[in-house]
Amino acid sequence: MKITSLQNEKVKQWVKLQNKKERDKKGLFLIEGDHLLQEAIKRNCVIEIITINPYKEDNIPVYEVTKEIMKKISEQQHGTEIMAIVKKEQHSLKPGNILFLDGIQDPGNLGTMIRSAVAFSIENVVLSEDCVDLYNSKVIRSTEGMLFHSNIFRVTKKDFLEKIVKNYTILGTDVSNGKDVTTMKIKKPYCLIIGNEGKGMSDLARSYCHDFLYIPMNKSCESLNAGVSASILMYELRKEK
Amino acid sequence: MKITSLQNEKVKQWVKLQNKKERDKKGLFLIEGDHLLQEAIKRNCVIEIITINPYKEDNIPVYEVTKEIMKKISEQQHGTEIMAIVKKEQHSLKPGNILFLDGIQDPGNLGTMIRSAVAFSIENVVLSEDCVDLYNSKVIRSTEGMLFHSNIFRVTKKDFLEKIVKNYTILGTDVSNGKDVTTMKIKKPYCLIIGNEGKGMSDLARSYCHDFLYIPMNKSCESLNAGVSASILMYELRKEK
Repeated sequence: MKITSLQNEKVKQWVKLQNKKERDKKGLFLIEGDHLLQEAIKRNCVIEIITINPYKEDNIPVYEVTKEIMKKISEQQHGTEIMAIVKKEQHSLKPGNILFLDGIQDPGNLGTMIRSAVAFSIENVVLSEDCVDLYNSKVIRSTEGMLFHSNIFRVTKKDFLEKIVKNYTILGTDVSNGKDVTTMKIKKPYCLIIGNEGKGMSDLARSYCHDFLYIPMNKSCESLNAGVSASILMYELRKEK
Repeated sequence: MKITSLQNEKVKQWVKLQNKKERDKKGLFLIEGDHLLQEAIKRNCVIEIITINPYKEDNIPVYEVTKEIMKKISEQQHGTEIMAIVKKEQHSLKPGNILFLDGIQDPGNLGTMIRSAVAFSIENVVLSEDCVDLYNSKVIRSTEGMLFHSNIFRVTKKDFLEKIVKNYTILGTDVSNGKDVTTMKIKKPYCLIIGNEGKGMSDLARSYCHDFLYIPMNKSCESLNAGVSASILMYELRKEK
């Protein structure tokens, strides 16, 4: 199907999905670029494909649009060639370890951590209620398609930690009083909590921790980037000690 | 000294420093926020301080400006309270290891890698001619002040690698043919090369490598974020094996 008018009802609906409220209401979100599209197709969650060049995909409606329309729907400065409308998947806790993100605000950081969690085979990524929206276009871009390989869901911090506290080793980070992650033995399954970029972990999350970790580093450096720190901890905790 | 007019000559000069050409010409750059200011003062490289609230610092000229002026000079969306004009420092190769950044384009990634290089005590950070400008405001912000603890300089890739190839173990990354960084023994000093976010290492840099590394990870994940990957490699190479 071809669409050439910016006033077309479909176009208006797609543009609205740039907005979190609309994404929440519809249970849909936008993805950009062929790499993400291919990952989403594998997961059977693509509803509609929007393209400026001819494109064919069995069983999924394809809309061919003008560059002008694409630029309006895309959230990248120079637009993109192909996009899709994707259905949010509902996930819940699976057996295995947990990366718990406590108020992460930077979309790039969140995307990077999701990507690293897949790389280091963490079974669950759990977002607290005050994290940035998972379906924000920058988050999705930074996951480099790994969003579709991740078991990820949002919870209310208190309820979730209360529920898992008896069956998981809950680990926080603490640069001054933590234990060295390179030598520490962890009883699995674990739930690793990564705090907000500026403020660190919330007092609530801290109160549930069984132990605290740190990454040994040079004293001139106060801390690492949150995405880096989470990634090194997941990398290190994967090793058998 | 108080400045209240946007037309003031000083204000015009400061705003121009948002531009790379002007920064190169003057050998100066802008920093924002008290944390960076304090780090820069320790390094004796602050030329002028610009503030909206009264502020005193011995031996450095302080300019009190209006919020409107500050918003014009600042590159953050909502402005800032204090800024400074800082002199670029000239660095050159020091004894020790090298992190070599081959065409890194994302300012956040560059800043993150500088921060991690300080954390993991890498003595030199070297930028190829095609890396993003070090004095870009987003790079500086992402270093979290670690720019001022880092021995960092820009080179011509070919000349630099040619010069060091006999005395350093030059290490690239290669997900399919590299050696596992967790078990590999490295002859020091080393020069670790991290390639561009999308394209990876340049053929030129690759041709100088003595060895290639990889970080063991889950097969569903093609690669890690460049900043994360650099950080894990530096973290791992620091350990004695």
